[in-house]
Amino acid sequence: MTSPMADDEKWMNMVLSLARKGDGTVAPNPCVGAVVVSRGKLVGKGFHQRPGLAHAEVCALAEAGPKAMGGDLYVNLEPCCHLKKRTPPCTKEIIQSGIQRVVISTLDPNPEVSGDGVKELQRAGIDVSVGIFSKKAFELNRGFFSLMKNRRPFITLKGAASIDGRIATSSGDSQWISGDRSLLLAHQLRNTHDAILVGVGTILSDDPLLTTRIPGKKTRNPVRIILDSMAKTPVNSQAVKTISEAALWIVAGQEAPSKKIMELQSAGATVIQCQMDAMGRLDLFELMNHLVERRILTLLVEGGGHVTGSFLSSRLVDRIRLVVAPLVIGGDDSINWVAGGDSPGMLKEAQRFSVPIRPTRLGSDVLLSLDLWDEKTMVSGRSDKEDSDVFGDH
Amino acid sequence: MTSPMADDEKWMNMVLSLARKGDGTVAPNPCVGAVVVSRGKLVGKGFHQRPGLAHAEVCALAEAGPKAMGGDLYVNLEPCCHLKKRTPPCTKEIIQSGIQRVVISTLDPNPEVSGDGVKELQRAGIDVSVGIFSKKAFELNRGFFSLMKNRRPFITLKGAASIDGRIATSSGDSQWISGDRSLLLAHQLRNTHDAILVGVGTILSDDPLLTTRIPGKKTRNPVRIILDSMAKTPVNSQAVKTISEAALWIVAGQEAPSKKIMELQSAGATVIQCQMDAMGRLDLFELMNHLVERRILTLLVEGGGHVTGSFLSSRLVDRIRLVVAPLVIGGDDSINWVAGGDSPGMLKEAQRFSVPIRPTRLGSDVLLSLDLWDEKTMVSGRSDKEDSDVFGDH
Repeated sequence: MTSPMADDEKWMNMVLSLARKGDGTVAPNPCVGAVVVSRGKLVGKGFHQRPGLAHAEVCALAEAGPKAMGGDLYVNLEPCCHLKKRTPPCTKEIIQSGIQRVVISTLDPNPEVSGDGVKELQRAGIDVSVGIFSKKAFELNRGFFSLMKNRRPFITLKGAASIDGRIATSSGDSQWISGDRSLLLAHQLRNTHDAILVGVGTILSDDPLLTTRIPGKKTRNPVRIILDSMAKTPVNSQAVKTISEAALWIVAGQEAPSKKIMELQSAGATVIQCQMDAMGRLDLFELMNHLVERRILTLLVEGGGHVTGSFLSSRLVDRIRLVVAPLVIGGDDSINWVAGGDSPGMLKEAQRFSVPIRPTRLGSDVLLSLDLWDEKTMVSGRSDKEDSDVFGDH
Repeated sequence: MTSPMADDEKWMNMVLSLARKGDGTVAPNPCVGAVVVSRGKLVGKGFHQRPGLAHAEVCALAEAGPKAMGGDLYVNLEPCCHLKKRTPPCTKEIIQSGIQRVVISTLDPNPEVSGDGVKELQRAGIDVSVGIFSKKAFELNRGFFSLMKNRRPFITLKGAASIDGRIATSSGDSQWISGDRSLLLAHQLRNTHDAILVGVGTILSDDPLLTTRIPGKKTRNPVRIILDSMAKTPVNSQAVKTISEAALWIVAGQEAPSKKIMELQSAGATVIQCQMDAMGRLDLFELMNHLVERRILTLLVEGGGHVTGSFLSSRLVDRIRLVVAPLVIGGDDSINWVAGGDSPGMLKEAQRFSVPIRPTRLGSDVLLSLDLWDEKTMVSGRSDKEDSDVFGDH
């Protein structure tokens, strides 16, 4: 005999596995799985396959048929009750099926409807539980949650620095700061993001592939995005030469020479042209709109220092993964992993995050993790705070 | 019934407690405790009280008298066998007592005699074990070990920085980077070091007390040392005004105005005059000699950035304790916690430590620890490597 709580966890794990089957095809919809359980036995299961097709709950109820009567439904995202979509609201189908209990991981992140599905089910006399494995459920759909809440991709900043926060010596030498375990982490991050973004400086100094390489594992490549206002990316760079393996998008400004843009396009690159912002940098907010339109919901920013500094000062960061390696670079002319701009006049004007740093050993290095998104807000869809509070100045 | 190993640990813990009783009076000798155990019962105990008085082993054997015959002796440091000192060699006394087994934490760190005491005991047919609680035993006498091995104090570098390695904005504002838990750590470190050292810049910008304050705990103040080549420490600074609570040493260069030096001396400060090095900075190696002469065996370096940078580039660091706080300071004109000097031309010339970084949560902050001394070398007293290997360039 297992406890009811252990049973809930077992079924919700199955739901999350089912939901993952939609990964890669459902975007910009979220990954959702559902199971129907009757007297401790699985009687129906389903997942959302692609936009326009049936929702997970509907699939699972269809498989269960009359066995759903009096049973439990498990689903990772709050069932929809609104009508502004191609399929009928799931709440109605659940109520009609005779389900007596619904177990949900996370509420709908859309603030206009969040919690409404739960209320409708409760009004129909159904017992509803919310919150089991909410972190896992958030992770699975972090891009969707970010899209709903912030109208932009979920952005992870990845850095590797010495214990004095530096990434390179004055000569620009920056490779091999961190160890093998940290390198694996970098590729694991690439494998779980829709796109990776670097500045053209990184292309010019390191000529990286930016593809995902994990020995012995089937991986997928993120779309490779280069911030390159003047379109300086060399046509013979590794990134351009591997376009057949992984898409390459060049983000250029209006001043970029059109001849070079055409050369890059001929080589297979997609060129996205953006306005410059007041600081004379590519407008990152405009870029975020372009990315959402192109279904990039999770973005990995890998530097260099000036790109990292721009994303941080624009408050366009949800998560930081910083590898700190056991070395000191020193030198007032070295480059910091957060570069560019002027210092704040007073320390209290610095960006102080309201979340703690979580540390992990990675071989000889240490990984410092900061999750800047407000989990409660993200998961419940209800926000009493503005985003700026996560970066609060207190 | 406890296991023989558990018994060894029990007795060695007692030895270490006894040894600690000498802390504060034995310097520059090490803290040493000893117990004699016969048929599982304590029959003698002792510790080294001050230079010139009997060694711990001799005290414990005297208390045990004839009961030592056939018994076990526990001691945290290898018994001496050499004659260049005021008291007779302990090995001789142990052999004469009829002890059958000797359990030792660490060998004598003096490379000229390390291991000789063990050999002498073994030649007399005594069973000898070495290594139990060697880390604890090293910690207890880290200043003595450093003195024997490096002819200088054991040096701990303490820093507090943002996740981008910065300590201050361009305006010099650097207080309150880290949280309460980290502040407590700073005071715990002060409580366990003979001296604390800062640059005069820290005095001029923050006017700190540099004393130890831990609520509800009896603490001791380290000697406060200020690197101050031109003797700019204000006579009305907090540090000078509290000289009756804690000693204040000003390290000045030959160019410092003698009138100001006399003023500081009149206020009760000790002024140590040092040469300048080739970089135009106070010669830290000369200072280390002064400190050893004045029985400073453990030194806590608390910054600022240029002082930290000087100690690191001079390879005068045995341990780093860096608190990283969840904020980004940013700005190319901000001050890094490791400041001064030029960057190395190539990354492979940076100081890469051969020890891993150990992380710990401290409230919302993270403590990154690096122990750069080679523990095996320190504890066994035998070195196959040079110090530079700890900072190896590989």
